Amino acid sequence: MTKLIWVLMFSLLATIPQAEELKSSQGTLVMTKVADGFDTPWAIAFLPDDNVLITDRGGSLYILRQHQKHRIKGTPRVFGQGQGGLLDVMVPRDFIQSREIFLTFSKRQNRGSGTALAVAELSLDFKRLIRFRILFEAAPSSTSSRHFGSRVIEAADGSLVMTLGERGERDSAQDLSLHQGSIIRLNRDGSVPRDNPFVGDPTAQSQIWSYGHRNPQGLAQDLHGAIWAVEHGAKGGDEINLIRKGANYGWPVISYGRHYSGSKIGEGTAKPGLQQPAWYWNPSIAPSGMMIYSGKLWPQWRGHFFVGSLKFDYISRLSGRALSEKERLTSPQTGRIRDVAEAPDGSIWFASETEGAIYRLSPANE
Amino acid sequence: MTKLIWVLMFSLLATIPQAEELKSSQGTLVMTKVADGFDTPWAIAFLPDDNVLITDRGGSLYILRQHQKHRIKGTPRVFGQGQGGLLDVMVPRDFIQSREIFLTFSKRQNRGSGTALAVAELSLDFKRLIRFRILFEAAPSSTSSRHFGSRVIEAADGSLVMTLGERGERDSAQDLSLHQGSIIRLNRDGSVPRDNPFVGDPTAQSQIWSYGHRNPQGLAQDLHGAIWAVEHGAKGGDEINLIRKGANYGWPVISYGRHYSGSKIGEGTAKPGLQQPAWYWNPSIAPSGMMIYSGKLWPQWRGHFFVGSLKFDYISRLSGRALSEKERLTSPQTGRIRDVAEAPDGSIWFASETEGAIYRLSPANE
Repeated sequence: MTKLIWVLMFSLLATIPQAEELKSSQGTLVMTKVADGFDTPWAIAFLPDDNVLITDRGGSLYILRQHQKHRIKGTPRVFGQGQGGLLDVMVPRDFIQSREIFLTFSKRQNRGSGTALAVAELSLDFKRLIRFRILFEAAPSSTSSRHFGSRVIEAADGSLVMTLGERGERDSAQDLSLHQGSIIRLNRDGSVPRDNPFVGDPTAQSQIWSYGHRNPQGLAQDLHGAIWAVEHGAKGGDEINLIRKGANYGWPVISYGRHYSGSKIGEGTAKPGLQQPAWYWNPSIAPSGMMIYSGKLWPQWRGHFFVGSLKFDYISRLSGRALSEKERLTSPQTGRIRDVAEAPDGSIWFASETEGAIYRLSPANE
Repeated sequence: MTKLIWVLMFSLLATIPQAEELKSSQGTLVMTKVADGFDTPWAIAFLPDDNVLITDRGGSLYILRQHQKHRIKGTPRVFGQGQGGLLDVMVPRDFIQSREIFLTFSKRQNRGSGTALAVAELSLDFKRLIRFRILFEAAPSSTSSRHFGSRVIEAADGSLVMTLGERGERDSAQDLSLHQGSIIRLNRDGSVPRDNPFVGDPTAQSQIWSYGHRNPQGLAQDLHGAIWAVEHGAKGGDEINLIRKGANYGWPVISYGRHYSGSKIGEGTAKPGLQQPAWYWNPSIAPSGMMIYSGKLWPQWRGHFFVGSLKFDYISRLSGRALSEKERLTSPQTGRIRDVAEAPDGSIWFASETEGAIYRLSPANE
């Protein structure tokens, strides 16, 4: 009898997701592991009906359905060297009608590789991507295996906004004839919006919306629809920027950081005509995904920024008209955060590369 | 006979406008005095059919019709101390239908004065303003007699954008609960556009579009509809800025200038979250009105900036993706330029306070 109870209890415990705690300024948070077994989980995106998409950088796209992880077929072949691979996944607002999802990845090209954006439909059984097509490829190719970016969001006006790293080729970020080191804006079908800032400029790529970026790996909209990016800077120069049409964010002309060799960057920290960051981290935290909270579970966090740190193993919370870091959410499970995302129910999810797992944060009194 | 010819020639010469020359990078310009007898001509605005409006800061609004200057009745009583008075005049795109014109001026208030915006209709005989009404008054009042701004333009979307100086009370420029030291945006009827950046913020005036300005006295739209302002900075810190929604231009926290006492300003020349200027002048030129050229008479100047200098008696021409001063247009007639404007025919007009006159520039081969 006693033995039977123990067996029953053990079985029950084995199927209940493990819950841990994480202390925060809003009280204790419950942290639940929702999926594991990933190599480098890179992005989290939410589908209707509690289904969740997760990319693994090696090239796999997973769906979580009823607490089970399944691999989706039909994903693109990726250029998997260095920081490359399958990167972001984004679910547009009309998914229920369109079944479309968007993926960013590093793509092998004739003379190297380039960051690409693709769209595909998710089959009705959620098992495969169909009608896959490339919407954009960065040009020209680069032979480096670093600084691909990339995140993509659906802006308030329905356009697609996507970040592109400078591939470690610094001066590319100031060269408008190259896509590298820019944030681009496309129509849903991959065409160029007529009101992009460099349309009609024969010296510029027409997809470019802003430039002078190093390696932006986080992108989010605030409650007013403004677009913010977070980028890996040089040593001591990781930046959050409000992304403005046509603006130059200064890399490598200005930076609050220094080259990893210790040498000074460009012309200093500021220059007329070049954008200042809204916030920078010194020392660098290696920022990854970013989310701006809009949910109901923590009303006092509405409008606050949550950014993952790859280097210091925490989630940074920032707020204020003059943006500043207010809190570092950390626990043994927050190793090498790759993405932070808000679920439709207002819970906060994150991907830990160290754990190879996805976690969900919710209030203790939920 | 000979005497008669001389008399005829003399009469003829007396009625022909005097033409002088001004050297430029686009060849010799013909400079014609089109009106004189002003005290402090402050703004020039063009009506259809070659009629021109000119404000004189003391409080008079003039119209030039068939080379004759007439005073228009029905202008507002102005607060005429210091830098105050009747300031800008603007003709909206629908003038032919609406007969409306807009005026900015310093207005006496209960406890001092404030910069105001008014609209009125110009009577069909062009002799008086009718249905005059105030659309906006800066709050709270200030007892200073300095830094009123002000220019007003009709933005591409039909809203009204207007500059306001900080009245010499520096910290006002960072205080969103005060209008001083900001650029505001209004609907045509004076109401607040719902998409203004601080709508719903109880700590801010809802008209504010951008802030941290010192004394912006020039405002212009470029060929893409973007809005630029030029402002009087501290010593060595006059700035041209691309005006972005909700942005903070830094006065008096940052500046490339120094206080006129020689002491350092605020925290230096740059700070995260604060906008850098697109261009600054050191030494200061005391910039007044600004025009961005869109005409056909000098195709190579399309998109270039023309800014009047009160202090150094020239018109500055600036251009480039990284904006810089390319040329200084100067002559004995360019003393204390108060405004620069483009006429419908593409000629460039300017107001000289030293001469108390308005001049027209045109190509020598026109």
